[in-house]
Amino acid sequence: MITLGELADRLGLTFSGDATRLLSGIAPLGSAGADQLTFLSEKKYLPQLAESGAGAVILKTEWRDQCPVDCLLSERPYVSFARATQVFDNRPAPSLGIHGSAHVADNATLGAEVSIGPFACVEAGAVLGDGVVLGAGAYVGHNAVIGDRSHIYPSAVIYHSVIMGSDCTVHSHTVIGADGFGFAPGPEGWEKICQLGSVVIGDRVDIGASTTIDRGALADTVIADGVIIDDQVHIAHNCRIGKNTAIAGCVGIAGSTTIGANCTLAGAVGVSGHLEIADNVHLTGQSRVTRSLSEPGSYSSGTPLAESREWGRNAVRFTQLDKLHRRIAALEKALQNNND
Amino acid sequence: MITLGELADRLGLTFSGDATRLLSGIAPLGSAGADQLTFLSEKKYLPQLAESGAGAVILKTEWRDQCPVDCLLSERPYVSFARATQVFDNRPAPSLGIHGSAHVADNATLGAEVSIGPFACVEAGAVLGDGVVLGAGAYVGHNAVIGDRSHIYPSAVIYHSVIMGSDCTVHSHTVIGADGFGFAPGPEGWEKICQLGSVVIGDRVDIGASTTIDRGALADTVIADGVIIDDQVHIAHNCRIGKNTAIAGCVGIAGSTTIGANCTLAGAVGVSGHLEIADNVHLTGQSRVTRSLSEPGSYSSGTPLAESREWGRNAVRFTQLDKLHRRIAALEKALQNNND
Amino acid sequence: MITLGELADRLGLTFSGDATRLLSGIAPLGSAGADQLTFLSEKKYLPQLAESGAGAVILKTEWRDQCPVDCLLSERPYVSFARATQVFDNRPAPSLGIHGSAHVADNATLGAEVSIGPFACVEAGAVLGDGVVLGAGAYVGHNAVIGDRSHIYPSAVIYHSVIMGSDCTVHSHTVIGADGFGFAPGPEGWEKICQLGSVVIGDRVDIGASTTIDRGALADTVIADGVIIDDQVHIAHNCRIGKNTAIAGCVGIAGSTTIGANCTLAGAVGVSGHLEIADNVHLTGQSRVTRSLSEPGSYSSGTPLAESREWGRNAVRFTQLDKLHRRIAALEKALQNNND
Repeated sequence: MITLGELADRLGLTFSGDATRLLSGIAPLGSAGADQLTFLSEKKYLPQLAESGAGAVILKTEWRDQCPVDCLLSERPYVSFARATQVFDNRPAPSLGIHGSAHVADNATLGAEVSIGPFACVEAGAVLGDGVVLGAGAYVGHNAVIGDRSHIYPSAVIYHSVIMGSDCTVHSHTVIGADGFGFAPGPEGWEKICQLGSVVIGDRVDIGASTTIDRGALADTVIADGVIIDDQVHIAHNCRIGKNTAIAGCVGIAGSTTIGANCTLAGAVGVSGHLEIADNVHLTGQSRVTRSLSEPGSYSSGTPLAESREWGRNAVRFTQLDKLHRRIAALEKALQNNND
Repeated sequence: MITLGELADRLGLTFSGDATRLLSGIAPLGSAGADQLTFLSEKKYLPQLAESGAGAVILKTEWRDQCPVDCLLSERPYVSFARATQVFDNRPAPSLGIHGSAHVADNATLGAEVSIGPFACVEAGAVLGDGVVLGAGAYVGHNAVIGDRSHIYPSAVIYHSVIMGSDCTVHSHTVIGADGFGFAPGPEGWEKICQLGSVVIGDRVDIGASTTIDRGALADTVIADGVIIDDQVHIAHNCRIGKNTAIAGCVGIAGSTTIGANCTLAGAVGVSGHLEIADNVHLTGQSRVTRSLSEPGSYSSGTPLAESREWGRNAVRFTQLDKLHRRIAALEKALQNNND
Repeated sequence: MITLGELADRLGLTFSGDATRLLSGIAPLGSAGADQLTFLSEKKYLPQLAESGAGAVILKTEWRDQCPVDCLLSERPYVSFARATQVFDNRPAPSLGIHGSAHVADNATLGAEVSIGPFACVEAGAVLGDGVVLGAGAYVGHNAVIGDRSHIYPSAVIYHSVIMGSDCTVHSHTVIGADGFGFAPGPEGWEKICQLGSVVIGDRVDIGASTTIDRGALADTVIADGVIIDDQVHIAHNCRIGKNTAIAGCVGIAGSTTIGANCTLAGAVGVSGHLEIADNVHLTGQSRVTRSLSEPGSYSSGTPLAESREWGRNAVRFTQLDKLHRRIAALEKALQNNND
């Protein structure tokens, strides 16, 4: 529980209403109760406040007069809401110290106040910064470096020599630094190209669960500061992802592709290898990216969903499109001839 | 080995033939031998029985006269086949009790006859029901609840406060309850929205390997009773999946989408966020779902596979479709003018 | 460090230049320094050699006269490059023997010189060949067989009774042998079909991270010799993948499909179940394969990426394609009538 006044302090916001009002959590506008905070990020929802049972609401200063309940005033209500969730963070606090069952190699280097869970494994030469949290069963390979306060959730795997900055998050079952998919077609089958590079990850990078980021073949795979990556994403060897780019679930990026800064890749986008994608490119869900994009903007591919039978009739016509095009050209010519 | 008579008893079916016939397993119609059971779910395959070496067959009562071998009679041969596979289940039985190497927090609550494998980890406040099986290296976070007889395979990860019903299955490397992908665009980059909700899973939910189901932002992500989920599926925060819905491999469902009951999502379907999908909706493979669907039925998107060069010619025309449409309209008008 | 002369010996190549030149690693043509090796696989890059600072280069014998630096002469420069990366392999050597914290069942069978990492688990009846490496937290289920020199990276999971050949690689968090997705629609919901088959993997199979290969329902799922599989791939039950086929990241193959030998599946291809794909079939990225392919060749589906607004205009027309087609047919008829 926190009072409205304390919460305003924590968030650096001014408030209007009862400073002693106790708030126990956050809820959506429609369901928030008298001890809950809610937020309003768009003006059109203002009328709903009248019917809301919320104890307090985060909203824009300019909407204050229209607000019937206690409020926190912000220029960016959604960002203030995000910060408020951090105040109400309900994750169990990690136990300080090294669990008795963990395996930490003699010559690993551990910063101050690390937390290493049961069955976690830190190999020789690895370096954990101050305040690093390794969940149960997490693995940090030889000579890998994990920056201060980075949090590796249970069973995530960081391969040898991976370098990760500070304040990063890696959720369970994500694998960073497995071999890139590199093979040469030899006379007797595929000849393995050892992946001699590594993965270098900046600061404040947030990576979801079951994601894979492969190590580079010769150079490194590089993820810049502030990148956020969802679950089930695959980033292949030698890719470079620019600052603050956001990558949603199930995206796959093939090898040696560079993605700019401040891009957004919606779910299940597929990007071919050896491409250059500019800054501020936005790709809608399931986009199939097979060429470089030098201009910022929004890009899409695919066809709209339809009832299957209707879709089938149109899909067949897709396979006849070039013929249809030629029939149209012939019609145009014939009509022209008629009119000449 | 089991006799035909015993098997009929176990399945609650009547049989025709030699009650003492010994059966050692199940095989497809084409390869089953004299000590093997097979099944017939469609009448059109009846003639193949004459050439089958199967010791016994499950089929419909009404086909009995046309069956040259011993048989088990069922109104639903395919369901009876499924139950027969359960009789022949060949999985190694889990060892009862807690393996000496496992870590179980002092104040975790364990039901009767649990099985906890090597290096499994049960955090403080977690509750395991009667007969729960935790495979080697499986992780159950703080205050998570696992219902009776649920089976968590090796290395699966259940985050804190997740609630799972009874008789569920979770295969290896699946992650339930990792953070949803929630960030607000702040002045200095992405601001983390702590995911304060959890995941609530009903009874008899079957989840494959390497699947991710994220915890909710404010409310919970909810999977109803009887849902079946394949491998490599991603279900984002705040989704709600209705009863008995089936989700095949590689499907991705973005945040806050509700899927109805008795739906089927074929492989690699992608569903956008904040949609409402009705009951009994069927989505074919790789469908791209970007709008709510209020009517039951089958839906599709995409284009048919073709030889690449031919595909390329048609794909180029796709990018000219709107122009083609206008050329057709112009032709229609010109012809109309000519005929006026 | 290795001398040019020694390297030539190791690769079975002749060389030209200073036999005592010391090489410390490999780098791309553009960035290689005086102590680094590079390679040239296409003639068109020959002119760039003049500006390269590389100490030595692997190239075709016939280009020798045009090469201004020391060189290794090969008929297949790219394959020789691959072998050279193996010489410079920088992975930490696995510790021989069984780590004190590992769990190895009494009646498991271990070959000579195995390496079993911390918290690895080898269940009863499992067999590890000579030189097998199990990384930290890797799991080998009951009666599974791992062939000589196969390397299972940390936390990979091999279910019971899986059979794997020699010289295989399985990266972290890959799951081999979880249940196939088999359920019969029963009167009260989905009835589980126990997956009684297993997975059989040949020799020299290379499998990336977070991939899933499910066990067969009645028969086995089969991966032939020399197959290479990237990260985040899903291969469903009863599939058969032919020799030396390459499967890139995020591919999903539904149940009971057979893929021939020497095929390539680019990223995120989706293949429906119960299909037969011939040898030497090549599928471009995100292809949607819903029919069997009896002829070798390259196949594609999907639509090209475009700026979202432009794409939207064309995508709408896709939904009118059948109508457009009929309008064209009507135009043709009308024109024909006019001209008759």
